[in-house]
Amino acid sequence: MRLFKRTTPPGTAPGTLPVVVRPTPSRMRLVRFDRRQVEERTLEEVAGLTERDLAPVDEDEDRREVQWLDLVGHDVGLIAEIGRRLQLHPLALEDVVNTGQRPKTDDFGNSLFVVLDLFAVGTGEDALEREQVSLVLQEGLVLSVRERESGVFDLVLDRLRNDASRLRTLPADYLTYALIDAVVDHLFPVLEQIGERIEDAEQGIMEEPDPGDLNALHLLRRDLLLLRKSTWPLREVMARLQRSDSTLIHDETRLYLRDVSDHVALCLDIIETYREMVASLTELYLSAVSNRLNEVMKVLTIIATIFIPLSFVAGLYGMNFDPKAGPWNMPELHWAFGYPFALLLMATIAGGLLLFFRRKGWV
Amino acid sequence: MRLFKRTTPPGTAPGTLPVVVRPTPSRMRLVRFDRRQVEERTLEEVAGLTERDLAPVDEDEDRREVQWLDLVGHDVGLIAEIGRRLQLHPLALEDVVNTGQRPKTDDFGNSLFVVLDLFAVGTGEDALEREQVSLVLQEGLVLSVRERESGVFDLVLDRLRNDASRLRTLPADYLTYALIDAVVDHLFPVLEQIGERIEDAEQGIMEEPDPGDLNALHLLRRDLLLLRKSTWPLREVMARLQRSDSTLIHDETRLYLRDVSDHVALCLDIIETYREMVASLTELYLSAVSNRLNEVMKVLTIIATIFIPLSFVAGLYGMNFDPKAGPWNMPELHWAFGYPFALLLMATIAGGLLLFFRRKGWV
Amino acid sequence: MRLFKRTTPPGTAPGTLPVVVRPTPSRMRLVRFDRRQVEERTLEEVAGLTERDLAPVDEDEDRREVQWLDLVGHDVGLIAEIGRRLQLHPLALEDVVNTGQRPKTDDFGNSLFVVLDLFAVGTGEDALEREQVSLVLQEGLVLSVRERESGVFDLVLDRLRNDASRLRTLPADYLTYALIDAVVDHLFPVLEQIGERIEDAEQGIMEEPDPGDLNALHLLRRDLLLLRKSTWPLREVMARLQRSDSTLIHDETRLYLRDVSDHVALCLDIIETYREMVASLTELYLSAVSNRLNEVMKVLTIIATIFIPLSFVAGLYGMNFDPKAGPWNMPELHWAFGYPFALLLMATIAGGLLLFFRRKGWV
Amino acid sequence: MRLFKRTTPPGTAPGTLPVVVRPTPSRMRLVRFDRRQVEERTLEEVAGLTERDLAPVDEDEDRREVQWLDLVGHDVGLIAEIGRRLQLHPLALEDVVNTGQRPKTDDFGNSLFVVLDLFAVGTGEDALEREQVSLVLQEGLVLSVRERESGVFDLVLDRLRNDASRLRTLPADYLTYALIDAVVDHLFPVLEQIGERIEDAEQGIMEEPDPGDLNALHLLRRDLLLLRKSTWPLREVMARLQRSDSTLIHDETRLYLRDVSDHVALCLDIIETYREMVASLTELYLSAVSNRLNEVMKVLTIIATIFIPLSFVAGLYGMNFDPKAGPWNMPELHWAFGYPFALLLMATIAGGLLLFFRRKGWV
Amino acid sequence: MRLFKRTTPPGTAPGTLPVVVRPTPSRMRLVRFDRRQVEERTLEEVAGLTERDLAPVDEDEDRREVQWLDLVGHDVGLIAEIGRRLQLHPLALEDVVNTGQRPKTDDFGNSLFVVLDLFAVGTGEDALEREQVSLVLQEGLVLSVRERESGVFDLVLDRLRNDASRLRTLPADYLTYALIDAVVDHLFPVLEQIGERIEDAEQGIMEEPDPGDLNALHLLRRDLLLLRKSTWPLREVMARLQRSDSTLIHDETRLYLRDVSDHVALCLDIIETYREMVASLTELYLSAVSNRLNEVMKVLTIIATIFIPLSFVAGLYGMNFDPKAGPWNMPELHWAFGYPFALLLMATIAGGLLLFFRRKGWV
Repeated sequence: MRLFKRTTPPGTAPGTLPVVVRPTPSRMRLVRFDRRQVEERTLEEVAGLTERDLAPVDEDEDRREVQWLDLVGHDVGLIAEIGRRLQLHPLALEDVVNTGQRPKTDDFGNSLFVVLDLFAVGTGEDALEREQVSLVLQEGLVLSVRERESGVFDLVLDRLRNDASRLRTLPADYLTYALIDAVVDHLFPVLEQIGERIEDAEQGIMEEPDPGDLNALHLLRRDLLLLRKSTWPLREVMARLQRSDSTLIHDETRLYLRDVSDHVALCLDIIETYREMVASLTELYLSAVSNRLNEVMKVLTIIATIFIPLSFVAGLYGMNFDPKAGPWNMPELHWAFGYPFALLLMATIAGGLLLFFRRKGWV
Repeated sequence: MRLFKRTTPPGTAPGTLPVVVRPTPSRMRLVRFDRRQVEERTLEEVAGLTERDLAPVDEDEDRREVQWLDLVGHDVGLIAEIGRRLQLHPLALEDVVNTGQRPKTDDFGNSLFVVLDLFAVGTGEDALEREQVSLVLQEGLVLSVRERESGVFDLVLDRLRNDASRLRTLPADYLTYALIDAVVDHLFPVLEQIGERIEDAEQGIMEEPDPGDLNALHLLRRDLLLLRKSTWPLREVMARLQRSDSTLIHDETRLYLRDVSDHVALCLDIIETYREMVASLTELYLSAVSNRLNEVMKVLTIIATIFIPLSFVAGLYGMNFDPKAGPWNMPELHWAFGYPFALLLMATIAGGLLLFFRRKGWV
Repeated sequence: MRLFKRTTPPGTAPGTLPVVVRPTPSRMRLVRFDRRQVEERTLEEVAGLTERDLAPVDEDEDRREVQWLDLVGHDVGLIAEIGRRLQLHPLALEDVVNTGQRPKTDDFGNSLFVVLDLFAVGTGEDALEREQVSLVLQEGLVLSVRERESGVFDLVLDRLRNDASRLRTLPADYLTYALIDAVVDHLFPVLEQIGERIEDAEQGIMEEPDPGDLNALHLLRRDLLLLRKSTWPLREVMARLQRSDSTLIHDETRLYLRDVSDHVALCLDIIETYREMVASLTELYLSAVSNRLNEVMKVLTIIATIFIPLSFVAGLYGMNFDPKAGPWNMPELHWAFGYPFALLLMATIAGGLLLFFRRKGWV
Repeated sequence: MRLFKRTTPPGTAPGTLPVVVRPTPSRMRLVRFDRRQVEERTLEEVAGLTERDLAPVDEDEDRREVQWLDLVGHDVGLIAEIGRRLQLHPLALEDVVNTGQRPKTDDFGNSLFVVLDLFAVGTGEDALEREQVSLVLQEGLVLSVRERESGVFDLVLDRLRNDASRLRTLPADYLTYALIDAVVDHLFPVLEQIGERIEDAEQGIMEEPDPGDLNALHLLRRDLLLLRKSTWPLREVMARLQRSDSTLIHDETRLYLRDVSDHVALCLDIIETYREMVASLTELYLSAVSNRLNEVMKVLTIIATIFIPLSFVAGLYGMNFDPKAGPWNMPELHWAFGYPFALLLMATIAGGLLLFFRRKGWV
Repeated sequence: MRLFKRTTPPGTAPGTLPVVVRPTPSRMRLVRFDRRQVEERTLEEVAGLTERDLAPVDEDEDRREVQWLDLVGHDVGLIAEIGRRLQLHPLALEDVVNTGQRPKTDDFGNSLFVVLDLFAVGTGEDALEREQVSLVLQEGLVLSVRERESGVFDLVLDRLRNDASRLRTLPADYLTYALIDAVVDHLFPVLEQIGERIEDAEQGIMEEPDPGDLNALHLLRRDLLLLRKSTWPLREVMARLQRSDSTLIHDETRLYLRDVSDHVALCLDIIETYREMVASLTELYLSAVSNRLNEVMKVLTIIATIFIPLSFVAGLYGMNFDPKAGPWNMPELHWAFGYPFALLLMATIAGGLLLFFRRKGWV
């Protein structure tokens, strides 16, 4: 996973949208709902939007209509056109298009802008998948822009279709909360999978450490770094939304936003705890490997140290000094019990060394 | 011990209670008390609660009645029913059921909600046991929900049964303080046991390090991580309760809450100190193991280095060059003192090497 | 890259400009623009500035003129002369000349002073290049001083030449923002290149670690340290500019400054993440190298441990004890199957050791 | 030194005093003083206190009397009795008895309560000794409770006996300051001794590292951890006392309390610096030990690597192939200069290897 | 360099000056100056001060006289006498005499007290030299006390002698700023020298690591620790002086104090960066040393592993089994091509092993 990717050169004007060579195919879904009914339309072009769509709705407590435009894919032209209709600030528009932003929230008066990172367990090689989710809250309208089609908002949509849902009776900020909550809650399955990987690694290392464990720990560390990088600023985003003095956020919603804050804090705690566990496991692994080396070395030491002197004795009596040249030339060779004497000498040496090692506690 | 476990998929509505396949059997105990009397009832079903139970009590300084409903086990239906009777906020209800929450406190106006983690020394394998304790404080009423039957509140109950106890004369917030205090004070025996494990590990490592010590240190580190993860947010919970502007908390109780805060701070200090001690012990262990390897290596070096040249000399005079082929072919073999000369040569080499090693400070 | 370099001795008066032996050739470019027209002049001497140049302009919403003096090189005399004409505070002047300042901003009432670090990917040996960019904002005037000619402001100049640009309609603080933005955005290509170096190092270490990787990681660490040293204070600079109560900064510009703040925060996040990745890679490298050593050691152990006893047996039967001296002197040598027996003995020993090693899991 | 020890089970009522099986013998000293006279009495029982003792004194600028009751030892009954007479809050009383508290200060309106840790250099094994010192400040009265008889307050008493001392003329809060100052200043000799131990360890490691150094470093680390654990909260205690809005603390005394704060900050700086020095020394030690191993290994490598090929050559010419069986069977053995040739071969091999090692820079 | 040294026992009264056995010879220099003239006098005794000296001067904008008393050395009696004349607070006096204070500033109403650490590159062994500089600012008077004669204030004195200097026209707080600035700026040459030592160490380690590098890194770490210990509180000192509401500090001076603050922040950044560089270099060194050991080990492995089996074969055919005892006793010895066969066998084994090693990538 790349950390970030800029598509405009430094120094370009703020709000400049990059020219994307191959725009990803986009899909729009407009959901209009109030207390009594829900209307869903899937569009492929901006032309499909009527005059009434995305227009400010007359606020009427009894019949408060909310529109939710959910945009998937990154067709820059399409986004620019929608931005123009919603009178989005160029800086907000730029951040929607240039994915890889830091999670953040901005208050542009008529609209509240939120950038989030959505994580998912990747399909191949245990990696993480990250995409940027941008939300724009206006009076009676929520715009959500995602990079890829994923099921992140499916349950929210199901709840919208349910006539008894609170979502249907509350203003647009509650829908925004629901979307943020869905994105944040997607951290939990990711963390659960990482937790399982850590437990697998722990079990593996405690039973039989092998070099693959270390690569696994390194990848865990990397994934946790990326999660932390996205989750840490989220804390500030949630705090700002709660404290926001924007009229777009009602007091009742703040209570729910605080609940999301608690989830974010929990995620951060888990991420930090995981990071320390991975660090502890890395140490455990390195030390387990070092222990194994010690054991191997010890066996070598003992076998070699015992046989080296024995081989020397054998070599000694393999020398060819001529006994006839003088009485001092290897008289042992001609003793009647020379060979048993040599064997006894060797056994004594071996026994003595074994005793020495046992005393040292090495055997 | 698993770090956390979600039972609802991301994106579900807040307040959604998970469908638990096998609800744990529950037990309720309702304690009604005032200055003059205590009444205890153990119930198994909500139906056992009368109209009067859990109802708001008329505040009357002289005869101030407090009700304490202590619920053990996680029967979701039962909790939902009680939540309905007490008009609990759906977010609070959700947090009671979804255990594994971060310790926190929320003020829902008519009720103050506190989530705590209760730790106990596990029965097997030195592990920790954790359970979530949720407290709800309302006017004249305290609800406590626990996961398992444990003796954590037994002493508080004993104090309630004692007519002279302060608990009997003070409003519900003082009982809440007493319950929080009991949960926090349960950290101390856990920390004491961990302290003993650290001391055992220290003694073991200083005397005779073995690989089991490292696993023990890793488990200590893990336990301390989990304790810290639960205790750190507790600090904020206590600070919030003290500063809370809720009318449910009286000034006199704040003084007692500050005392609990001090205990939490003491626990955190001890946890951090323990963590650093474990880190220091890990280094000590690794270095002790490395020292042992050094010693083994040194012995190998010395024995091998002395005998390798000796064996070479022995091999030299074991060569079969034909002395008859020329006067330069191994004349030593036919010297009268060839063998003593060879032995002397070997002794000289060995002595020289020993001297060299002694000078280097290796022997 | 040197960390810093002072040119005046400690204790000299503030505002003292160092005497530079070889002043670098300077180049000035004065750009005057308003809504309708742009006028560019390149000067080589202060004498080229007319009375009208750098003079306070009469504020007139419709015809608001902004002057931008872009100075490249460090001719101290020239800078002092310009400082005199703009009535710069001696402390500001000192900081412009003494490059190697910490990024900072000062409010001198009539002028706002900003010091930034501009980074670029160096041409040789992957190193970073750093230069100080100083900006002075006055009513209707922006002064920028750079150390070297680089293209950092080229795109801003292009935008100025474009009649439709917002830059042309807004006051001098917006131009200042655009220059700061250009400098900050130059961090991204630098970070992208560092990201690629990290990925190269990661791939190299995972496939085939070699000592060059470690030097590469050390240089990465050093570069990230220098980047962090410059970027961290930048955060404070941006916060101060946003909160500044100077009348030189208009409210609309603050929104844009916040956008730059977000970029700075993103850069810091990336730098921190990179730093931890480099730390993790360093550990991975060290451990990979240690693994390789283990493998080598194991092979040595096994081969040596098998052959040492075999060699001993061979040495044993190479001894020259005289069989005629007694029946106990090496009778095996005269057995009919003595040699096959010896070979069998060796095979048994080798097989036994191999079995032992396999049981230990070493083979 | 144990980190902490609870004597009451979790869940007991606040203010419950533990039943101590063997109460330590206690000693009380009551010092009454004003501008003109000092009266000292040593008591063994509460009964020795008259009605006038510990009673509130009528405030009279000219003849302001202060009483100081200094209690040594932990007779729980005695402390409870004194607490009753001074109307101490049960929480304060509990903290006096349950030693091992975190340093803290509480304001109970009529009394100000301070808990401190007093450190001393232990007599055996270089360890630290810690005891809790509790101070209670009331109008005209100071109560100090210590665990053991130590000379910590001797100099303060000496100053009290001196008619010219400021202590005699100022109210009770100044005496409290003097006692706190005495306790804090006792950190300095402890830090000086630790500094000496660090310097000893540094010298030892730089000259001749041995495994004992590591244990010494571990104990230093442990001692510094315990000191930090007690000194860190002290910072907060001092800040609270300075900012306290209690009428018991006069403005003039705050200046002196700030001076103590500075001492505490200096101690913390020294502790942190020491901790980093110990960490650096640990690394230095480990690396020095590793260097020694390297040197040993290198000698082994060189000696073994030179002699192994030589031994092979010797073994080669020790083979018994029958030269009569064919002309290719070891003709060298029958060369006139076979032996010198073999010696030359060996010398060439040894020289070649030495040259190779020298080129590698290993010799 | 010792970290700190107390000269009074704990518990002594504040303001007690230690009895110094050998007072260092002192030197005083009194500089009186106003816009028009400067008068310098060097004194050796307090008696040399007239009534007019150190007396409060009548404030008169046009003829504002400032007195600067610069005291070098630590003659306690002299300092006490001057303290009495200037009515210094005993706590300030104590801090002047007890050097080794933490940098700090205190506001005693009539005087502002500042303690700083002055660093210099030591003459021997690359060490740092530290001395305490104490400054007292009163209306129209500055007292500076230093431990040793050093040139730190020489340039300030030169500026004072210059009639055109700003120092001559501004009140005493500007002189105080100039003295603080001189002390802080002395950090830069120290940091430059440390930077050079780091670069030397880096070059040494990258080219040819040797154990001396590690000691050098340890000393660098120690020096940086001491610098940080003194510079960190300096930040707070500067912030307090800037925010000080003392009438002794005029608004214009605050701007200059902020400039010093920036220098302190720059120093801290450099110190932190250096510390991380030293840490990175330590790792680089350790790993370079470990790489060297690996290379040595690999050569040993390869040479030993090739020759051990060869030696075994040679030993095999050196056995003395009697071929006459049976046809199975070493028939190879009597083959016509037995010796070439044995050599071929050895070459095959050596070649096979080399191939194996090459495949493993070890050669």
